[in-house]
Amino acid sequence: MKKLKVALLGCGNVGSQVARILLDDAAVLAERTGAELELAGIAVRNLEAPRDVELPAGLFTTDAEALVDSADIVIELMGGLEPAASLIRRAIDGGATVVTGNKALLAKDLPGLAARANEAGVQLSYEAAVAGAIPILRPIRDSLAGDRITKVMGIVNGTTNYILDAMDTTGAAFDDALTKAKELGYAEADPTADIEGHDAASKAAILATLSFHAPFDLDDVDCEGITSVTAEDVAAAREQGMVIKLLAIAERLGNGSGTEGVGVRVHPTLIPRVHPLAAVHGAFNAVFVEADNAGELMFYGQGAGGRPTASAVVGDVVSAARRVVLGGPGRTEATVGQVKALPIDAVRTSYSIGLQVSDKTGVLAKIAKIFTDHKVSIETMRQSPEDVEGDAPGSASLRFVTHRGSEAALAATVADIKELSVVTAVTSVLRVEGN
Amino acid sequence: MKKLKVALLGCGNVGSQVARILLDDAAVLAERTGAELELAGIAVRNLEAPRDVELPAGLFTTDAEALVDSADIVIELMGGLEPAASLIRRAIDGGATVVTGNKALLAKDLPGLAARANEAGVQLSYEAAVAGAIPILRPIRDSLAGDRITKVMGIVNGTTNYILDAMDTTGAAFDDALTKAKELGYAEADPTADIEGHDAASKAAILATLSFHAPFDLDDVDCEGITSVTAEDVAAAREQGMVIKLLAIAERLGNGSGTEGVGVRVHPTLIPRVHPLAAVHGAFNAVFVEADNAGELMFYGQGAGGRPTASAVVGDVVSAARRVVLGGPGRTEATVGQVKALPIDAVRTSYSIGLQVSDKTGVLAKIAKIFTDHKVSIETMRQSPEDVEGDAPGSASLRFVTHRGSEAALAATVADIKELSVVTAVTSVLRVEGN
Repeated sequence: MKKLKVALLGCGNVGSQVARILLDDAAVLAERTGAELELAGIAVRNLEAPRDVELPAGLFTTDAEALVDSADIVIELMGGLEPAASLIRRAIDGGATVVTGNKALLAKDLPGLAARANEAGVQLSYEAAVAGAIPILRPIRDSLAGDRITKVMGIVNGTTNYILDAMDTTGAAFDDALTKAKELGYAEADPTADIEGHDAASKAAILATLSFHAPFDLDDVDCEGITSVTAEDVAAAREQGMVIKLLAIAERLGNGSGTEGVGVRVHPTLIPRVHPLAAVHGAFNAVFVEADNAGELMFYGQGAGGRPTASAVVGDVVSAARRVVLGGPGRTEATVGQVKALPIDAVRTSYSIGLQVSDKTGVLAKIAKIFTDHKVSIETMRQSPEDVEGDAPGSASLRFVTHRGSEAALAATVADIKELSVVTAVTSVLRVEGN
Repeated sequence: MKKLKVALLGCGNVGSQVARILLDDAAVLAERTGAELELAGIAVRNLEAPRDVELPAGLFTTDAEALVDSADIVIELMGGLEPAASLIRRAIDGGATVVTGNKALLAKDLPGLAARANEAGVQLSYEAAVAGAIPILRPIRDSLAGDRITKVMGIVNGTTNYILDAMDTTGAAFDDALTKAKELGYAEADPTADIEGHDAASKAAILATLSFHAPFDLDDVDCEGITSVTAEDVAAAREQGMVIKLLAIAERLGNGSGTEGVGVRVHPTLIPRVHPLAAVHGAFNAVFVEADNAGELMFYGQGAGGRPTASAVVGDVVSAARRVVLGGPGRTEATVGQVKALPIDAVRTSYSIGLQVSDKTGVLAKIAKIFTDHKVSIETMRQSPEDVEGDAPGSASLRFVTHRGSEAALAATVADIKELSVVTAVTSVLRVEGN
């Protein structure tokens, strides 16, 4: 039986589980691959660092380059841009098959790495980079290869879904839900990358690149996190039969007059409770895909964690190893088209707008005029039935949900409403999808 | 640009949509494949039959063999065993790449066809055979290739899900829901294959073969349809916080004493309303997968219909064509292990048992003794609060839900309860999963 040397770069919570699977399940993997997958070494920065899994000390090395040079298959799980990028390029140039879960690197230069892999005739796989254990990239790349994807909407960050779900089920404020998430290990000590949407934005860029067969990077993603979502927003969503989720959205836009392109964005979003994405609770992830022929699809599962993510990594390793055993060049999906990344102003969405107004007389007429001026159509208006506790006497809370309109017109409407002297505060502005 | 000749066998509602996509989207498919996919011909039995889509008359032929012999890629969508099987073998032996959606044929001999394809170095793909547009086979085969699947539970028949969902939401009786399904085109004039579970059983065999890397065929599937599900069963399920779905289930079984194997079955099943599969409505399909490392995954989408199923077919065509363009042998997943198919008696499940009893005095004690004798533990018992309308005076309705036990013990328990003179009728016996 053929033997393939596997180099593992990085040994954090995913890497250590990958090593465990390669060692413990070696017989099964050999049976499925047709080759013995020999874990040749694990490159780490610090040989003494504690690991999640007990692994033979002899496997560890700090010489990542030498390890890469000796390997048939290189698994990169160090994260970050450097030295990961250089090591991946070195592996590709040396003819090794590469598996990575590095979303930051892929969001920066997936097309460049894919082109390089194809030139070298090696396979570059990265299923673990988006939504952990959920097989989503392979289905988009291969199963939907004969279809036209029109929209992808994903809950691709478990931390923020845990927080928003906790706010929805317990009525907690954002800060309290975040504290709880930290206590339970769902949020890191510095949760910035999660709660500001940066992690989701990287994944949105990768999803867009594969879904629309054109290069998108992090700079193409309009990104808004969940830090300004309040308990009141969540309660108001519930009253409307909706729930707030942080969605990564990539969709084909076009008005038929030549301004075709794809809008990629991450923001807290109101979705109806009957939408399949609304049933994604806790730290689970899901990606909802709309395609011309396939219609609506959803992929659901664990989006993070050592073992689930390791499952995706080893799946890539086995798939790629099968090709190596069989012979013939490896294949990496490369972007083939050029589709313009459009700014969020080009998106058509609907808004849910919460207002505090100081005086009821004539207020509605004034607000309605602004909607009309911007050609934005109101779908529903809800006035709080009586003065809310703490409101100034004579004040009221209003909540409008608009029909779908251009982001530019919606934003301009909100800006003008803010200027009205009768409007005390714009308490929330949230986009609505899935309705 | 390389040109690949595509032969289409069969032009029903899926075939005609495949032809449409190959013709209308030729430019996009060429871009994504790296080759021109030329629809060389469509083999049909009757040249004059009406088609769902208008297609050039010159494409049609009744000489399927000549068409197959001329093709680089053969798409078989005739269905049934013959002549489909002979034509697929002919295509493989001639070195053509094969794409099929023929679940009956695959449930009979997927391992044989896969081995033949591998010997010839050609790829055999069949994503459309299970759950229509939902990418489920490729994720199981490739993405989960490094994991151990423990259980697969699928709603894989849209007709029965439509009927059961209608019964749940409207309270309709089975016959009325079936009539409605026929009117709306969700059920065929002869719905036997759907409502008796045969269609789901074919898909269960294919899912089991891929999930457990061992050959399973239709004979290994214990199959029960939905014709005996009553409006009362559905109402009782609702009261219990459950819903009835027809599930195709394949799971690894083992008691640690050497009787390891896989149980494959199709039957109406009670699942909790909070389970992700409970939210699958209408004619939609979904497959829920449990794996050692990945944890719980679900794949959701349209399981039938011309366009969705055609999306899966063309996805397979593009993926396979990319390999042909690249060079190197095609690869078809072959079964590698031998895992015993176990009879349903080996399954551990729980039962929900509905009884009509003639006399309340001492009845519970008698029934409880039978449960104890068979070492079956009762989880809940519910007695109808008062005599149900139409019941004989002094009679009562009881519903037991058991803890998980062996199917053999559960079946023996029900058989003994039936013999009790105080038991007027066993009104329903349904298995419970997902709790």
